[in-house]
Amino acid sequence: MARIIDVEVRDVRFPTSLALDGSDAMNPDPDYSAAYVTLRTDGPEALTGNGFTFTIGRGNELCVLACKSMAPMLIGLELDDLRADLSLVWNALVGDSQFRWVGPEKGVIHLATAALVNAVWDLLAKAEGKPIWRFLSDLTAAEIVSIVDFRYISDALTPSEAMDLISEARSTNTLRERDLVKDGLLAYTTSAGWLGYEDDKVRRLCREAVDDGWGHFKVKVGGDIVEDLRRCRLVREEIGWDRALMLDANQKWGISESIENMRQLAEVSPLWIEEPTSPDDILGHARILKAIAPVGVATGEMVHNRIMFKQMLQANALTYLQIDSCRLGGLNEVVAVLLLAAKFDVPVVPHAGGVGLCEYVQHIAAFDYLTIARDPSKILVEYVDHLHEHFVDPVRIENAHYMLPTAPGYSASIRDESLEDFTFPTGRIWMSRS
Amino acid sequence: MARIIDVEVRDVRFPTSLALDGSDAMNPDPDYSAAYVTLRTDGPEALTGNGFTFTIGRGNELCVLACKSMAPMLIGLELDDLRADLSLVWNALVGDSQFRWVGPEKGVIHLATAALVNAVWDLLAKAEGKPIWRFLSDLTAAEIVSIVDFRYISDALTPSEAMDLISEARSTNTLRERDLVKDGLLAYTTSAGWLGYEDDKVRRLCREAVDDGWGHFKVKVGGDIVEDLRRCRLVREEIGWDRALMLDANQKWGISESIENMRQLAEVSPLWIEEPTSPDDILGHARILKAIAPVGVATGEMVHNRIMFKQMLQANALTYLQIDSCRLGGLNEVVAVLLLAAKFDVPVVPHAGGVGLCEYVQHIAAFDYLTIARDPSKILVEYVDHLHEHFVDPVRIENAHYMLPTAPGYSASIRDESLEDFTFPTGRIWMSRS
Repeated sequence: MARIIDVEVRDVRFPTSLALDGSDAMNPDPDYSAAYVTLRTDGPEALTGNGFTFTIGRGNELCVLACKSMAPMLIGLELDDLRADLSLVWNALVGDSQFRWVGPEKGVIHLATAALVNAVWDLLAKAEGKPIWRFLSDLTAAEIVSIVDFRYISDALTPSEAMDLISEARSTNTLRERDLVKDGLLAYTTSAGWLGYEDDKVRRLCREAVDDGWGHFKVKVGGDIVEDLRRCRLVREEIGWDRALMLDANQKWGISESIENMRQLAEVSPLWIEEPTSPDDILGHARILKAIAPVGVATGEMVHNRIMFKQMLQANALTYLQIDSCRLGGLNEVVAVLLLAAKFDVPVVPHAGGVGLCEYVQHIAAFDYLTIARDPSKILVEYVDHLHEHFVDPVRIENAHYMLPTAPGYSASIRDESLEDFTFPTGRIWMSRS
Repeated sequence: MARIIDVEVRDVRFPTSLALDGSDAMNPDPDYSAAYVTLRTDGPEALTGNGFTFTIGRGNELCVLACKSMAPMLIGLELDDLRADLSLVWNALVGDSQFRWVGPEKGVIHLATAALVNAVWDLLAKAEGKPIWRFLSDLTAAEIVSIVDFRYISDALTPSEAMDLISEARSTNTLRERDLVKDGLLAYTTSAGWLGYEDDKVRRLCREAVDDGWGHFKVKVGGDIVEDLRRCRLVREEIGWDRALMLDANQKWGISESIENMRQLAEVSPLWIEEPTSPDDILGHARILKAIAPVGVATGEMVHNRIMFKQMLQANALTYLQIDSCRLGGLNEVVAVLLLAAKFDVPVVPHAGGVGLCEYVQHIAAFDYLTIARDPSKILVEYVDHLHEHFVDPVRIENAHYMLPTAPGYSASIRDESLEDFTFPTGRIWMSRS
């Protein structure tokens, strides 16, 4: 028998703005950061669980305080009870009426919920000695459905429909697993296309990525449209026309602006335009999608909960659904959205990059591939080559594929030395800059 | 010449849960709270500005920290510059890319934006010696349009359409102002209908309200439907059938549940059902509205920004638009939503109650009445008889109408003694309870 006896929360920030890594039209100088949670338990094994939420600098302190404010709800919970009721923590955190007021289920409080909920999942998977993707995939269909909060989505997906989707996917499961372990999950790279990079650096990174076997490239747009088009042509020169090119406007445009700009950018034959406009604008995305077909529309890294994704699907507002492992309130809500996407037959292409998002989403995509997706061949996972060295169990990329993690848990643990160096504002790196 | 030289932020909480004031189906035990901002200026007058955001207890500390985190952006700003560019603070706060990540424009960061933005408006109105409703109404149409951030809403409302709406409303302005000053703004009461009250208390409060001239009553539902219906019948017995009855489910229901329950509650002839389901569910509200007509649908106290309201209007998802003066990012966004509502000819019926929401919204409704609304006779303002004694310039109700405030500013200043008593957790009231 073991209980959660301590919740530690750290403000960890990396000074990525120095190199313009991660720069885009909306976010010119991000310092990639995490509100990082460590759960400690008693019992003979003294297991720990880690989870975090990702931010880009200022505002990380708000997620840290929100984790600390909600932490008392976790103290004293028994691992056996958490395993028996996989929604226990989600229900407790999302159901607190006072915290709910400052959301509900959105913004700071929901980002913090993700860190705490994911830390509990990490703990449970470690207790069973399995990576999260395996832990989830080994659950019964009924257990998987029990993870999901159907409140406000049952008009689009019922528990029994969810059971059917899982059964259907599992009927071809054995075959899928063999492929997945051998080849890994197909990935795309965003590493070459940041807006702050010089042309020469973009060309060099594109060439290196082609040599490394990458077949899918994402480029940031949303600056001056003439300049955007010039950069996209430059990327096409390097990657050719047989590889896929995706564009990302990071919400810079309005609706008619999106449609007009994509008429011009259609020249470079993009697979999708990502975040053309506000993530809240469901009806706007639907209008854009209709106007720019056959180019697809992708969004999700700032779509804040299952209720918004439900409507995006109902309104035919997206071609690719870019789940975010921190924006949604942790793995419980991620599973809800995977099931919704399968119901509407829209592929899930998770958002990654930042701090540790790649580490998180490989588990989500593998579980989706094995257990939920209608067409697993459409799954594609973002990859950004940043900050992996700080993780205890970093992602492994081979031939443009994520190779599946084997260590128990959610791959969410940051190395002790990195925690010491990058804790804000008292860590070594920050003290030396001030 | 005067500049902002200091931003003080206080955590103020009232232990309202003791009397179940404010109890509803979703929020059983709120402690009405405010993250309270005081701006200090130099210059000969040493003017101060106050603003706040409302929460119901836990989580207030997050809004306090968010105000503190953003406060440096206000330090050093000149009053003259703020007056010359009425969007300056809104643009600075909403445009900060790092803080934007933990929103965007929603949740804690947006609630805190409201407190800071509104404090600046309070300051500007005091500098001109006018109450906010008068300050706004005296602006030119071009100045009013300059308040609005059209990003993400210009597909529904252009600046020139906004100009036309103002001109149209102002063509009958003189007549309106005479009525408004004489009679005040028509109000409805929520004071009798809290879920935690006993039958006898509800009956007594209804009778007193009828005697005081109230013609519109709101009752909380969302518990057991049989019990809801029983309580509504009881209220009808007291208020008769000539007065209006509104129902409020505080998001307890799903969509088909809302439709089924409203078929039963139609018996008591409600004017509207408020918050039947999730405030994020635009398409869901539209389905409910269509199914339960002629009963109306009202929502807004948790609709988090102008982009969501835009879609609610585009999708025909509401009959009454319940703007919230803290949930939206302050007066700039409130004006945007008033204009959107006028464009779609939907009356704005502001959410009030809580801490100081009545004090805020009387200004909004008066400005709407004089300058924007298509049909001012449809404006109705919520009134709850709570906590007004803590304000320097509390609302005045006469014959179920808000009488217009005359003191300069936004009526947002809390009395010094109340601040000392209720500051959390060090104030006298909280020290004596612990």
